[in-house]
Amino acid sequence: MTVVAVSGAGGRMGSLVAETVAGREDLELGALYDPENPGGEIAGVVVGDDPSPVAAADVVVEFTRPDVVMENLARWRALDVNAVVGTSGFDEARIAELGTVWGSGPPNVLVVPNFSIGAVVMMQLAERAAPYFDGAEIIEMHHEKKVDAPSGTAIATARRIGGDPPIHSVRLPGLVAHQVVLFGGTGETLTIRHDTTDRSAFMPGVVLAVRAVAGLDEPVSFGLEAVLSSEQG
Amino acid sequence: MTVVAVSGAGGRMGSLVAETVAGREDLELGALYDPENPGGEIAGVVVGDDPSPVAAADVVVEFTRPDVVMENLARWRALDVNAVVGTSGFDEARIAELGTVWGSGPPNVLVVPNFSIGAVVMMQLAERAAPYFDGAEIIEMHHEKKVDAPSGTAIATARRIGGDPPIHSVRLPGLVAHQVVLFGGTGETLTIRHDTTDRSAFMPGVVLAVRAVAGLDEPVSFGLEAVLSSEQG
Amino acid sequence: MTVVAVSGAGGRMGSLVAETVAGREDLELGALYDPENPGGEIAGVVVGDDPSPVAAADVVVEFTRPDVVMENLARWRALDVNAVVGTSGFDEARIAELGTVWGSGPPNVLVVPNFSIGAVVMMQLAERAAPYFDGAEIIEMHHEKKVDAPSGTAIATARRIGGDPPIHSVRLPGLVAHQVVLFGGTGETLTIRHDTTDRSAFMPGVVLAVRAVAGLDEPVSFGLEAVLSSEQG
Amino acid sequence: MTVVAVSGAGGRMGSLVAETVAGREDLELGALYDPENPGGEIAGVVVGDDPSPVAAADVVVEFTRPDVVMENLARWRALDVNAVVGTSGFDEARIAELGTVWGSGPPNVLVVPNFSIGAVVMMQLAERAAPYFDGAEIIEMHHEKKVDAPSGTAIATARRIGGDPPIHSVRLPGLVAHQVVLFGGTGETLTIRHDTTDRSAFMPGVVLAVRAVAGLDEPVSFGLEAVLSSEQG
Repeated sequence: MTVVAVSGAGGRMGSLVAETVAGREDLELGALYDPENPGGEIAGVVVGDDPSPVAAADVVVEFTRPDVVMENLARWRALDVNAVVGTSGFDEARIAELGTVWGSGPPNVLVVPNFSIGAVVMMQLAERAAPYFDGAEIIEMHHEKKVDAPSGTAIATARRIGGDPPIHSVRLPGLVAHQVVLFGGTGETLTIRHDTTDRSAFMPGVVLAVRAVAGLDEPVSFGLEAVLSSEQG
Repeated sequence: MTVVAVSGAGGRMGSLVAETVAGREDLELGALYDPENPGGEIAGVVVGDDPSPVAAADVVVEFTRPDVVMENLARWRALDVNAVVGTSGFDEARIAELGTVWGSGPPNVLVVPNFSIGAVVMMQLAERAAPYFDGAEIIEMHHEKKVDAPSGTAIATARRIGGDPPIHSVRLPGLVAHQVVLFGGTGETLTIRHDTTDRSAFMPGVVLAVRAVAGLDEPVSFGLEAVLSSEQG
Repeated sequence: MTVVAVSGAGGRMGSLVAETVAGREDLELGALYDPENPGGEIAGVVVGDDPSPVAAADVVVEFTRPDVVMENLARWRALDVNAVVGTSGFDEARIAELGTVWGSGPPNVLVVPNFSIGAVVMMQLAERAAPYFDGAEIIEMHHEKKVDAPSGTAIATARRIGGDPPIHSVRLPGLVAHQVVLFGGTGETLTIRHDTTDRSAFMPGVVLAVRAVAGLDEPVSFGLEAVLSSEQG
Repeated sequence: MTVVAVSGAGGRMGSLVAETVAGREDLELGALYDPENPGGEIAGVVVGDDPSPVAAADVVVEFTRPDVVMENLARWRALDVNAVVGTSGFDEARIAELGTVWGSGPPNVLVVPNFSIGAVVMMQLAERAAPYFDGAEIIEMHHEKKVDAPSGTAIATARRIGGDPPIHSVRLPGLVAHQVVLFGGTGETLTIRHDTTDRSAFMPGVVLAVRAVAGLDEPVSFGLEAVLSSEQG
């Protein structure tokens, strides 16, 4: 039984993670930490403002803000707890900084910019398909409230495909999060499309990361790919 | 039995029209005219360089070039033959010029920028759907050899939808001619998509126009819509 | 200002309707009625078990169960309140029964099996497109927990298209509610697709019905089409 | 420079292969053989009814009929020419028979049921994606004249995905050859779609096979996969 703490448990994603963990037989919900939103209760566990109970967990899932995440991670490292991180803002500089902060393992830390297994699979398939076609274009489609364009996933996909695929960004109400990668060759096309219809899409990836983080070869890893490839060989 | 002549019968579209006409029971293939590519034979009729046999036809289908089409049309008008025109380049100025050249009818002339019935239906549906949604975007996708972007059909669709829908142009080998109109509203989207998979897609529209041109109320008409709406009421 | 009561306000759809009404400037949330789930509070209004306060409303929205809906509607008619009904189970026999129960108007009653404006528009467009193509097939796709197949909307669409379009039913996790109508003709296809991504998709239709029910020509009407066509002429 | 002969050069696919070979710089069009349709000329080479000139080729491409293919292949083996086979009808029994007829190599023979690189890539991607999702369904869509359903490619895809994915077969005019593989998981879906828009889609696969057949490790191979995987490692 893996004991899981959640940091940022008062937030939208953090509370969903806590509920998800409580519902899995091989996971046990331990401490819930959120100094900015304490007092709530999820599956019988109260959200507290004291980080020390996290020490009893095997893994802590961090869903907080860029301005507090590094301080928290230093703390979990000191408490000897593996960490799975969903907080945004981990560019290359921050990843490098984390390498210094975290040092050697165990425990391990895994930073994941997109927990959707389907999105990761989409990128893997697109990379694999690209050499067989003459050209590619990407169409990413999101709800009208998404302010940045193109999406981070579209940029990452383009980088993995290589060359210089044009990216089209569609913003409309009624959309959630969708991406189409379209490949063209002589007399034929191949389309790879990923549709996220609910925030619950991220939970299987969180659970996968929680189960696998302690067994990773490296102390600091990046991307759900680390966990997926260790599963699929 | 309607007798049909084809002007530009030595070209790719003209010869396909001639074959199509020859295959319809209610149409009879009359003269084939093409002073630049004479000598071929389609369904037993020889392509000639003399325009006078066109006089025996009820309808002439014109698939030529912008630099010769106006002279030809003046000739068909003088010969008292109805005309269906697929030659490109009819902007508003040229339509106005044609009104002067053609004068009153009968006979009638019908200029059609896109003979695909499906493309016309797509535009009608998009126009009809637009008032029920909060926003729209258009994605038009064509083979990589199409040099202009966005496509004329995409521009026409955007005009009919109104507002200011963004148009995305995808150019890839393996594509033929495709257009997606995507509407978004609260919690839902509606997609209207048209795919042309073969040049034969234009033939039913040509036949429809040939059958209907003589019965139009106006001497000069524009767009396959004129014929479709007269059929559907 | 139209005053709106909600019957079944303790349920999932009823409470969403109440929240929606409270958020519209031209609508005022009046009584909330639910004898089986009383006691909650939505936008400052308490859900009660006494039907009499509904009398003060201009329109009551009924989202209850088939076994109580007819009794409720007889009561709203006696209280002289217009009704919009989202309760399921209104087959032709029940519609006929309602005609007898309700009698002449005003007030009016409008029974709506599907409040999604997009789904209604999809059916209208499919009906309009059908005469231009040689064949059609329907693919309806829903989450794996939907037990009936094909969906009611697919059956209704097939009836409106006419002929005998095959219906394919896809059931997979991750899907919400989607329908594709695919038309084929010579060298081209036309696709009309509707995607519901959130239950909120039904609220604009509810609001439209609430605003329009009092002005309908008939005392008993069926389908959101009644309201949409009165808007679009 | 690889010299290529075509057996069945008088047929639709055979003549397209001959034209394709003539247009590639690293390939040289040698003998054209078709005892049932002799006399034509492609790129300056006459289609003949004598098989002996095939002996001068490095590779012969066979696009004939099931009732003559085995006799032809025995002849090419005797002439010491590598063979790429597109003739249909190679079930497991016939493959086994070919193993006996061909014996050891070199030369080698490669039997390919579907030369579309995109279709092969689609199947590879589908197989790779399947373990990450909870369910899958296949929708294959073809022109109305395709008599068999489901398609061979759909059956092959289902076998590679494993489990028991339902297959839906759509048959409509205007379609060419299309397949959709739809995967569903918690809150998300992944779609892999392949569209063939022209017979030319098969030519890159033919050229790939022609270039690679002599270098294969086994004397008798099956499927374009043999060539694709040797390229991509």
